[in-house]
Amino acid sequence: MLTNDQLSQWDRENFFHPSTHLAQHARGESPSRIVTGGDGVFIEDRDGNRLLDGFAGLYCVNVGYGRTEIQDAIAAQARELAYYHAYVGHGTEASITLSKMVLDRAPSNMSKVYFGLGGSDANETNIKLVWYYNNILGRPEKKKIISRWRGYHGSGLMTGSLTGLAGFHKKFDLPLSQVKHTTAPDYFRRDDLNQTEAQFVAHCVSELEALIEREGADTIAAFIGEPVLGTGGLVPPPAGYWEAIQKVLKRHDILMIADEVVTGFGRLGTMFGSDHYGIEADIITIAKGLTSAYAPLSGSIISDKVWKVLEQGTDENGPIGHGWTYSAHPIGAAAGVANLNLIDSMDLVDNAGKMGAYFNKAMADAVGGHAHVGDVRGEGLLCAVEFVEDKSDRTFYDSSKKIGPQLAAALLKRNVIARAMPQGDIIGFAPPLCLSKTEADSIVLSMADSIKEVLG
Amino acid sequence: MLTNDQLSQWDRENFFHPSTHLAQHARGESPSRIVTGGDGVFIEDRDGNRLLDGFAGLYCVNVGYGRTEIQDAIAAQARELAYYHAYVGHGTEASITLSKMVLDRAPSNMSKVYFGLGGSDANETNIKLVWYYNNILGRPEKKKIISRWRGYHGSGLMTGSLTGLAGFHKKFDLPLSQVKHTTAPDYFRRDDLNQTEAQFVAHCVSELEALIEREGADTIAAFIGEPVLGTGGLVPPPAGYWEAIQKVLKRHDILMIADEVVTGFGRLGTMFGSDHYGIEADIITIAKGLTSAYAPLSGSIISDKVWKVLEQGTDENGPIGHGWTYSAHPIGAAAGVANLNLIDSMDLVDNAGKMGAYFNKAMADAVGGHAHVGDVRGEGLLCAVEFVEDKSDRTFYDSSKKIGPQLAAALLKRNVIARAMPQGDIIGFAPPLCLSKTEADSIVLSMADSIKEVLG
Ligand SMILES: Cc1ncc(COP(=O)(O)O)c(C=O)c1O
Ligand SMILES: Cc1ncc(COP(=O)(O)O)c(C=O)c1O
Repeated sequence: MLTNDQLSQWDRENFFHPSTHLAQHARGESPSRIVTGGDGVFIEDRDGNRLLDGFAGLYCVNVGYGRTEIQDAIAAQARELAYYHAYVGHGTEASITLSKMVLDRAPSNMSKVYFGLGGSDANETNIKLVWYYNNILGRPEKKKIISRWRGYHGSGLMTGSLTGLAGFHKKFDLPLSQVKHTTAPDYFRRDDLNQTEAQFVAHCVSELEALIEREGADTIAAFIGEPVLGTGGLVPPPAGYWEAIQKVLKRHDILMIADEVVTGFGRLGTMFGSDHYGIEADIITIAKGLTSAYAPLSGSIISDKVWKVLEQGTDENGPIGHGWTYSAHPIGAAAGVANLNLIDSMDLVDNAGKMGAYFNKAMADAVGGHAHVGDVRGEGLLCAVEFVEDKSDRTFYDSSKKIGPQLAAALLKRNVIARAMPQGDIIGFAPPLCLSKTEADSIVLSMADSIKEVLG
Repeated sequence: MLTNDQLSQWDRENFFHPSTHLAQHARGESPSRIVTGGDGVFIEDRDGNRLLDGFAGLYCVNVGYGRTEIQDAIAAQARELAYYHAYVGHGTEASITLSKMVLDRAPSNMSKVYFGLGGSDANETNIKLVWYYNNILGRPEKKKIISRWRGYHGSGLMTGSLTGLAGFHKKFDLPLSQVKHTTAPDYFRRDDLNQTEAQFVAHCVSELEALIEREGADTIAAFIGEPVLGTGGLVPPPAGYWEAIQKVLKRHDILMIADEVVTGFGRLGTMFGSDHYGIEADIITIAKGLTSAYAPLSGSIISDKVWKVLEQGTDENGPIGHGWTYSAHPIGAAAGVANLNLIDSMDLVDNAGKMGAYFNKAMADAVGGHAHVGDVRGEGLLCAVEFVEDKSDRTFYDSSKKIGPQLAAALLKRNVIARAMPQGDIIGFAPPLCLSKTEADSIVLSMADSIKEVLG
C-alpha cells in the first residue's frame, strides 16, 4: 500500500472520475475515498472506515462483497484463458455456459443473448438491433425510440438521450432527435394531485397515445423502460401501468425493451422485473446483477420474434456488422456463471423479496410519519424516501437547499452509504440482496436519526 | 469440461456472437471454435488444435497469452476488492496507480485519464466531452466530427458512424448526420495511380480543406484518426500526412483525437503512435494494449487544454453528467498495472519495433514478388498483404471471389491465425509484441505457402 498522501496526490493529478465535480476534485476541495476491501454488505476504506453499503456499489454488488466463489472463478479463468474474442463463432466454455444459464432464467419467449460490457453499451446494441430489425422488415421510417422522463438507460450519446434526467442532457446537446420522452410513471410526482392512481395510469396512457399520434406510429420502433424507475428515484409503477402501456405498444407494433439492468437477477424478489409485472419484452437489457459487478459484463436478451428477423437479415446481408472487442469477455463470463450459481445457492431472489418487504415496511413505519417525508416507497430491495418542504400540498424543497445530499452525508457519518438520487430530494437504498434483518434494522435506525439531525 | 456436443449445442441455441452470420451459426453451418487456453503467441482449442495467433486476438493480447504476472494481479485484486465504483471521487489503489502510469507514458501535454471499458465507449466519451467543451466555450454550433473512410472507431451508433467501413453502416442507418468522412490516407488505393505519395498527401489535404469549407469550420469540433489505419486495412499513412493534416486542423481550431486503441502501448515500436508520427493530440483513445485484453478497460486521455475547459464546465454547471457503472473497474485496473509493468520488463516496445521491421521485410521478400500481391506494408508489428487480380493496373478482385477469406482459411490449415480484413482482399497480421524470429519466420513461410495454394 502506498502512503496515503502519495496516492491521493496521484488521484487529484491524473484521474478523471465519472459523475464528479472535476475542478473541485482536482483542487482537493471535495472528499475522496479509496476503497480497499469488503465483505457481505460492508466495505472498508484505507482510512480504516467500515461502512454498511446500502446501495451495493451502484446497485450492482447484489451477492455482497468478498464472495470467494466468484473470486475463485475469476482467478481460475484468468489462469486458464483470460481472453479470446467471440467474433465469427468463437467462444469459451464460460461464455457459452453463461448464455445457457441466462436463457434458462429468462422469460420463455427469449431466444439468444448478446454479451457486452456495461448497461449503456447493451442499450446501444439494442437500438442498433431495433433499427436493423425494421430495415430488414422493410420499414425504414420506423426508427424513433420512446423513453420516459426520469428513466435511466445509460450515459452515452444515444443512451444518455434515452435517459430522461436533466443532468445527463445539459451541456451535452442531448437528447438526440431520434428519442422522444413520455410521462414518468411517478404517481407521487403527478401534476394533478387530485388524480387517483387509476386516473394517473389513464393519463400516462393518453400521453403516450398522443405522442404516438403526433409522431406517427410508423415512425416509432420501440419503447424502453425500467420495470421500476431506478436512478430517476426508485419508483415502482402505479398499479396497472405495465398492462395498460403494453396494450398501446402492441396496437402500434412498437417493440418493448425492458431495461432490467437494475431489476434483473433478483432485486425485486423475482428473477426478472418482467416476471414481476407481467412485462412481455421483445428485448431485455441486463448488466449489474449478471456478475454482481465482480467483472464487467452486460447483455441484450433477444426474443424469438426479433431473433428470427436478425437471422433473416444475415441470410440476406451476411455477417452482422456489430461487435465489441470485449463482447463475452471470459473473465466476465466466469464471474457471471459463479454469480448466478451463488444467487441460487444463497437463495437471494427469495431473500430480496422477503427482506425487501420487511425493510420497506420498517422504513415506512420509522420515518413515514415525519413532517417532511412525502413518500416512502419501494419494491423488493429497492427503497426510497422522498422529502418535501410541505406535506399538505406536496411542495418540494428548492434544490439549492441540498436536502438530499445533506441527508446522505448524515447517513455517512453513521457509517451507512445511501444515494442522494440526482433529481429531487430522494434518499435511495438498494443494498446487497444478502441483507439481514439486523442490517436492515440498522439502516432504518440510522435513517431516522439522520432525518432528525438534518430536518428536526 | 462439458462434452463437446453439449457445449456446441448450447452455443448454437443461446449465444449471439458478434460479427457473425447469425443464421448460419444457429443452423450449425459455419465453423465454431471453443478456445481453452494459450501461452505466448499460441492458443489452444478444445479439439486439441494449437494455433499461432498472428492477430493477437483482435490485436489486443499484446504481451501474449498465459502471463502469470497479470493472472496473479487479477486474482489478487478479485480477492482484495473486485469492485467499487469511481463516481464522486471514489477510487482504488489499482485505478489511481494506473492513472499515474498512463500519464507517465503519455505525451507531455496530457493531463488526466478517464477509464471506460472498451474502445467504442472511450470514443463515445470523447465525443461527449468535445461537445461539452464547445458548449462551455460558447460555440454551440461547433459540433461535427470529421473521420476518414476506412477508419475504425467502434461499433456503436455514433462510434460506428465514425467508422468508415460499409459493413458497419449498412442496414443500421449509419453514419449519423453529425459525422462527416474524408479521404482515407491509403496511398495504395488512391484513385489516381499517377499521383506520387507527396501529391496524394496534397490531395488528402485539399479534400479535407474542401470538406471544412463546405461545412463551415465553425460547425466542426474535432477530427478523429488512427495513427495507422487498422481494421480498414493496416495502412501506414503516406509520408508527411500527419504534419500536413494537423496544420489544417490547427488553422480551423479543430480538436485532434488520436485513436490509439491499436497503436497505444507499443505496437508501432513506440509507446504511442502519436510519438511515432509527431501527432499532437488533444485527446487520445486507448484500450486493447492497456490491459492486453486480460480484462476490459479503455481510456480517454485528456490534454491540459481540454481539461481546463472541463474544469471550467464543472465550476459553472456542477458535477459532469457522464459515467459508466464500471468506469475504472478494479479488475481492469489491476490487469492494466501488471500489463504495463510487463511491457517494460519484457522490453516489448523495443521488440515490436525491431521484430516488426524484421517481420515486415521478411514478408515483403517472401511474397512481394507474387503476381497477385499488390502491396506489402506495415509499421511495427502491423503487417498487411493486399491482393489484386492484375498488378499492372491494380485491378481488384470481385469481392464474391472471397480471396481474402480463402487465404485466411489456408493459413488456418497451417495453424496460423490471420485476419481477412473486412473491406478488400487484405490479409492482416498483428501478432503479440513478444513475437520471436522463429515465430515470425513460420508465419511468413505459411503465408507464402497459402498464397501458392490459393492463387498458384
Ligand atoms: C436501468 C439502467 N440501465 C442502464 C444503465 C447503464 O449501465 P452502465 O452504467 O453499466 O453503462 C444503468 C446504470 O445505472 C441503469 O440503472
Ligand atoms: C482503432 C480502434 N478504435 C476503437 C475500437 C473499438 O474498440 P472496442 O471493440 O473495444 O469497442 C477498435 C476495435 O478494434 C479499434 O481498432
